[in-house]
Amino acid sequence: MIPRYSRPEMVAIWSPETKFRIWYEIEAHACDAQADLGVIPRENAEAVWKAKDVEFDVARIDEIEAVTKHDVIAFLTHLAEHVGSEEARFVHQGMTSSDVLDTCLNVQLVRSADILIKDMDALLAALKKRAIEHKDTVRVGRSHGIHAEPTTMGLTFARFYAEMDRNLARLKLAREEIATGAISGAVGTFANIDPAVEQHVCEKLGLIAEPISTQVIPRDRHAMFFATLGVIASSIENVAIEIRHMQRTEVLEGAEFFSMGQKGSSAMPHKKNPVLTENLTGLARLVRAAVIPAMENVALWHERDISHSSVERAIGPDACVTLDFALARLTGVIDKMLVFPENMLDNMNKFPGLVMSQRVLLALTQAGVSREDAYVMVQRNALKVWEFRTDFREELLGDEDVVKALGVDGINEKFDMGYHTKHVDTIFKRVFGE
Amino acid sequence: MIPRYSRPEMVAIWSPETKFRIWYEIEAHACDAQADLGVIPRENAEAVWKAKDVEFDVARIDEIEAVTKHDVIAFLTHLAEHVGSEEARFVHQGMTSSDVLDTCLNVQLVRSADILIKDMDALLAALKKRAIEHKDTVRVGRSHGIHAEPTTMGLTFARFYAEMDRNLARLKLAREEIATGAISGAVGTFANIDPAVEQHVCEKLGLIAEPISTQVIPRDRHAMFFATLGVIASSIENVAIEIRHMQRTEVLEGAEFFSMGQKGSSAMPHKKNPVLTENLTGLARLVRAAVIPAMENVALWHERDISHSSVERAIGPDACVTLDFALARLTGVIDKMLVFPENMLDNMNKFPGLVMSQRVLLALTQAGVSREDAYVMVQRNALKVWEFRTDFREELLGDEDVVKALGVDGINEKFDMGYHTKHVDTIFKRVFGE
Amino acid sequence: MIPRYSRPEMVAIWSPETKFRIWYEIEAHACDAQADLGVIPRENAEAVWKAKDVEFDVARIDEIEAVTKHDVIAFLTHLAEHVGSEEARFVHQGMTSSDVLDTCLNVQLVRSADILIKDMDALLAALKKRAIEHKDTVRVGRSHGIHAEPTTMGLTFARFYAEMDRNLARLKLAREEIATGAISGAVGTFANIDPAVEQHVCEKLGLIAEPISTQVIPRDRHAMFFATLGVIASSIENVAIEIRHMQRTEVLEGAEFFSMGQKGSSAMPHKKNPVLTENLTGLARLVRAAVIPAMENVALWHERDISHSSVERAIGPDACVTLDFALARLTGVIDKMLVFPENMLDNMNKFPGLVMSQRVLLALTQAGVSREDAYVMVQRNALKVWEFRTDFREELLGDEDVVKALGVDGINEKFDMGYHTKHVDTIFKRVFGE
Amino acid sequence: MIPRYSRPEMVAIWSPETKFRIWYEIEAHACDAQADLGVIPRENAEAVWKAKDVEFDVARIDEIEAVTKHDVIAFLTHLAEHVGSEEARFVHQGMTSSDVLDTCLNVQLVRSADILIKDMDALLAALKKRAIEHKDTVRVGRSHGIHAEPTTMGLTFARFYAEMDRNLARLKLAREEIATGAISGAVGTFANIDPAVEQHVCEKLGLIAEPISTQVIPRDRHAMFFATLGVIASSIENVAIEIRHMQRTEVLEGAEFFSMGQKGSSAMPHKKNPVLTENLTGLARLVRAAVIPAMENVALWHERDISHSSVERAIGPDACVTLDFALARLTGVIDKMLVFPENMLDNMNKFPGLVMSQRVLLALTQAGVSREDAYVMVQRNALKVWEFRTDFREELLGDEDVVKALGVDGINEKFDMGYHTKHVDTIFKRVFGE
Repeated sequence: MIPRYSRPEMVAIWSPETKFRIWYEIEAHACDAQADLGVIPRENAEAVWKAKDVEFDVARIDEIEAVTKHDVIAFLTHLAEHVGSEEARFVHQGMTSSDVLDTCLNVQLVRSADILIKDMDALLAALKKRAIEHKDTVRVGRSHGIHAEPTTMGLTFARFYAEMDRNLARLKLAREEIATGAISGAVGTFANIDPAVEQHVCEKLGLIAEPISTQVIPRDRHAMFFATLGVIASSIENVAIEIRHMQRTEVLEGAEFFSMGQKGSSAMPHKKNPVLTENLTGLARLVRAAVIPAMENVALWHERDISHSSVERAIGPDACVTLDFALARLTGVIDKMLVFPENMLDNMNKFPGLVMSQRVLLALTQAGVSREDAYVMVQRNALKVWEFRTDFREELLGDEDVVKALGVDGINEKFDMGYHTKHVDTIFKRVFGE
Repeated sequence: MIPRYSRPEMVAIWSPETKFRIWYEIEAHACDAQADLGVIPRENAEAVWKAKDVEFDVARIDEIEAVTKHDVIAFLTHLAEHVGSEEARFVHQGMTSSDVLDTCLNVQLVRSADILIKDMDALLAALKKRAIEHKDTVRVGRSHGIHAEPTTMGLTFARFYAEMDRNLARLKLAREEIATGAISGAVGTFANIDPAVEQHVCEKLGLIAEPISTQVIPRDRHAMFFATLGVIASSIENVAIEIRHMQRTEVLEGAEFFSMGQKGSSAMPHKKNPVLTENLTGLARLVRAAVIPAMENVALWHERDISHSSVERAIGPDACVTLDFALARLTGVIDKMLVFPENMLDNMNKFPGLVMSQRVLLALTQAGVSREDAYVMVQRNALKVWEFRTDFREELLGDEDVVKALGVDGINEKFDMGYHTKHVDTIFKRVFGE
Repeated sequence: MIPRYSRPEMVAIWSPETKFRIWYEIEAHACDAQADLGVIPRENAEAVWKAKDVEFDVARIDEIEAVTKHDVIAFLTHLAEHVGSEEARFVHQGMTSSDVLDTCLNVQLVRSADILIKDMDALLAALKKRAIEHKDTVRVGRSHGIHAEPTTMGLTFARFYAEMDRNLARLKLAREEIATGAISGAVGTFANIDPAVEQHVCEKLGLIAEPISTQVIPRDRHAMFFATLGVIASSIENVAIEIRHMQRTEVLEGAEFFSMGQKGSSAMPHKKNPVLTENLTGLARLVRAAVIPAMENVALWHERDISHSSVERAIGPDACVTLDFALARLTGVIDKMLVFPENMLDNMNKFPGLVMSQRVLLALTQAGVSREDAYVMVQRNALKVWEFRTDFREELLGDEDVVKALGVDGINEKFDMGYHTKHVDTIFKRVFGE
Repeated sequence: MIPRYSRPEMVAIWSPETKFRIWYEIEAHACDAQADLGVIPRENAEAVWKAKDVEFDVARIDEIEAVTKHDVIAFLTHLAEHVGSEEARFVHQGMTSSDVLDTCLNVQLVRSADILIKDMDALLAALKKRAIEHKDTVRVGRSHGIHAEPTTMGLTFARFYAEMDRNLARLKLAREEIATGAISGAVGTFANIDPAVEQHVCEKLGLIAEPISTQVIPRDRHAMFFATLGVIASSIENVAIEIRHMQRTEVLEGAEFFSMGQKGSSAMPHKKNPVLTENLTGLARLVRAAVIPAMENVALWHERDISHSSVERAIGPDACVTLDFALARLTGVIDKMLVFPENMLDNMNKFPGLVMSQRVLLALTQAGVSREDAYVMVQRNALKVWEFRTDFREELLGDEDVVKALGVDGINEKFDMGYHTKHVDTIFKRVFGE
């Protein structure tokens, strides 16, 4: 979790303050349920709520932990300092530390997912806005970095929209994956605590009771969660790479927003570097780095070992905070991104007319020329354009075989741009609906 | 794809024969749709179906590819050898190689997913059977590899069931993720081919038309697919590790089925090694190895580069074949696994009665002893058991403070096993339903 | 970088204070070299050293960066506040930000490596001490978790020593890998700065001048560095897993040091959990998580893109700090680890005499019995021991075929433990030298 | 291991034939050493060499394995069919399967490393050739994909040379890492076999005796080996990405060799796609995929578990074969790569003169202009060039402040290309020596 790649709302979820607050709520709700069951006195349960508005003193808890060497005990000791040690004596009864820790972690992940979902909504809105804006902005489509056929910038934004929309659906599933809690005791048998306590606490915290847990909530859920973040990060990289390509000096079809006051580099004032999207490329690597450790965490020994814990202390905040930051940064980039339609046309005409070659090839075969011959006819003219930058249409009009096959008008009509954009509406409807 | 870790049905999906068969179907259905649209003559479309029962000659196609250096052209050339080159001249018209390749890959992944779903059904059946069989087989639950409290072997199987059931749900979603096809041309604009062709072909192949594609189907879908396989593999490792622990000489609570004729090792005939589950541990690593490359494949340049292709040629078959094999192997292991209930009791009583210590601790606090004091009272007796292997109940009965707090009967009733198994039914109902 | 898994000396290397200090030294030494070359006035170079004892004000630099949006410019502006803006006007002349940033990063990595090397020295010392102490402490060797043949605890420690000694050698190479600096300008051509400046600065900082750089130092060096940390982390996991196995209730051949005052868990006072080694298992996953991102950082675009930077801001400190902590923690664990020789003997005799089965098998074939028959003879007796826990030697002595082949004395001498330990000295000599 | 990404020499190393051949040599040499020690009769040792020229029948061995379910026993049984079962009865005496398997694996890895070393020699030769050829071919250096300052194509090749030369050194170390063998018995104690046998076999096979092994050779060695391959693969990606950028339509400074007869795509004859380097990008991902599994293999349980085996059956051949293919492919690409110096100049002048802006900035500060003012003066002229594609030098000559500071001649001399290439010789000397 690098401060410069962090946003406060997400960071707050992972603060010790929030953690202790969630621990407190788990313990307090559990006491209520225990009182309902008659296991502990009602007044002791009620007493715990005296601390409802307390902001727990992290330094003090750390101090206690230094002695007890156990974080949950340290917290409970501190809680007793607020509630009264007599009143607090039934707190945590029948529970095991992991009941608190694991349920808390999932609350944090759920809240993180909620922020990420909001982030994606904003990103989708920005992508949709730019897609509509540039629906008809023609640019050349490229395969292998090589000009292929015309497409539009709107389609580029629309496909990022569709990809991110899939990611939003995945994220919602990932949120469901980890929206469970467990208060099932040392090995998950509810030996010392009634399942009703788990039920009550989970309900209060917006979770589902984990159907079967051990000492811990099963880690395949977390693995799936972080894997989903990894996919989203990879999609961010996908968008970032597109923008970086667009901004490179020779292409210059778009750029991250550039405010004149900003110094792009310490030495070259004219350079406008796509540093935000380069940064996003790196952040994607960082989020992905959580995936394999999260998967390695699944195979815990028997009813649990604690190897997962240190991993999650790192990747929990790191992956969530980084992805939140990255989504927000990307939204800003998309929202304000500069698009240069004229450069798009200039680029498309670098080899004048050549992007129409497939269409000509197809027309030749439709006109009865064999695939092999058509290929040769297109190739010989295309190569001239490639080498001498002549105009492809002119070359074709000067090629007897081609003229014979297609006619002059036939050749000319192959260079109509509308041919390539005629289904943009259809695709937009598929992506954005009515 | 290692032959010894492969099963024929899954391998067949990834054979060149199957691939060419799917290519053929894509091309033939596309011709039908083109004829429906009036783009190509009906008789040419019908002619393609002459090859319906042909088994394509892989060696011949390879031979042609050696010349043309292009696999789809090689296939089309070979197809023309069957259909007649005149009749075949409209095949592939308006299409781009990736239309065929990408749609085919997704058909293969969908079929693979179907096998994996069957595999998981079988695994779930085996786990459920063993869970019910051992619902009441008491064993000690362990955290950190250390005895904690009693649980049952049925709960162990049940939690693996629940985990694999989640994996099944994930797998079905992963199948949906990649059940799309695209016939949208060189940059995804349908410039040279009507979207109706895509619609028709996808329908015939059991796919959804990709709402927006470029030259290729977006790779976030595949990343999610392989990430899901990685999670499943991690769960396989989880089960495998449990069994390996159970079979270790000192534990011996269970074992992979052992047939007397089998030589366990070249030199030590009495050794019964958990080699299948060790093997599964390794296979899990292999399946997981596909995850990051699949994520790195997402960020293709512009409308596509072909860097993903070599990755998928490897991880497509490798991950699917390995996971299929692993699931089947695990199912066999679970189905026939030896369980040793007597050893479970022996182990639980290694430190006689000590597994009841948490219950005693709880009882002491409920009886009004402070948490600190209760802790000390339990600890001083527990340490004697740990060091001298005396009986914990006896120690407690000999401890004045404890007797004073709980009474003799109170102490004795803490050692009732039913206390720990009383919620097994509840948990089973949660996992398996009515 | 999780505070609880951090040690101050390593953390300090990655603090902003240290970073700015190193930046300062790079700039100051560069000024000296520029003055030597006559490029800038000597007095301006000397003036920079006025700030020699300044502790740079991180908050102030951050403040300036908030305006300039460029960290190096912010630092230089702040430096000028100390040196005087007139005197400081030649600072950084001809240099590019990366000259400072990259050289600084490598200084930090070198210093980190130096700490890690010290860590490994301490770990090696602890391992050697324990190896010698337990050179002759017999325990059973296990393959597949199953008893195989006797070995000694000293050999276990010795092999960890040998493995860590290889890691030390790798670490020293990794340190060499990143002990380079570059002051070569915007694209590495030294257009605006003489190579002599690079030479001088590197010398002063204990680095080698990077033979050829672009705007940045090539990232294959860093990839190799982090890959090496990943291997070391995996070895830490290897040792940790051994100890976790030793400590599990049924094995109990060793344990992390346990001080009576420590609360092992909030609820089960008798549990002595191997939480340190479980933690190390998790930390190993975290260190390994740096490896793939570091490798993905190698392929920067042209003379550099900045995608590597965010990755390194995270994995630089994270991997170094975590590994430092893990090595120190492991050293403590090894140093104070409890070893239980009696339990080792108990375990070895769980199936009395069975660990000698390979030796008996060998003796039978040497006595002229066919491999197949010998196998059968050993197996039938071994299985009795396995099932009824009888004594293997007794069973053999009661098996006519075996007695016929080996004789009574021949059988008895196969159960001499010295047979298995006779080469321990040889191995120790190989590992530790004379 | 995908056939189309494989070369026969490397594939052969990983064939069953080669494996059995190595097993045979290990067994035969071990018999010699056993005879030297007087452990087995000399004639039996000699008899084994009767099979010296036998090509072992893989199908037959598989057949036997189907019955014995043990690969080494199957091989030994087959060997006895050649040598005579009486004569062969001392083969493998005192050894354990892993002695053979692990020593064999390392022989295969060493031989693979030898091929990879040859591959790298060839690649280095190609890079050096092209570096010298284009030492003075000026092109623009880019950071962030944006034009920075001039450099030369020779420097690009030279830095790839330097990077690959480091990789060669790493590879040689990796070869050393795994050039060990072990014949130390079931748990590594040499209980049943004298260390002299190990010594003899290793010597004969060009290996070092592993100082301390368990049943297996320690896997940190293999982890380091595969990590090194991962770094090399990442460097391949680095070179590949550069070429892909060079070849993109708008840049076109270089291209993979293009033979006119080749069909670049099924539909667009003029497209010359960088498919080889795109393929290399994908292959790099595949080789890297071996790294984490190899690291996960390090922590085997006690004296060994067999989880590593399935991983190595896959990544052993896959990573070596893929990297061998990739290195050879890259060598071919470099060797024949097309370089377009004119396009390099065209690109550099896309914004005429702007690449000289840093030099002008520096000159202004040296002439006494404050850094801030100089920055503004350069920026205002640069922005005009960027927006209107005017000539930077002309703009400067028309800017009173700049002329005042530098003079007309002073401005003109800033546009001398020699300024940027003056240290190319120095760098070449650093990289290639005298």
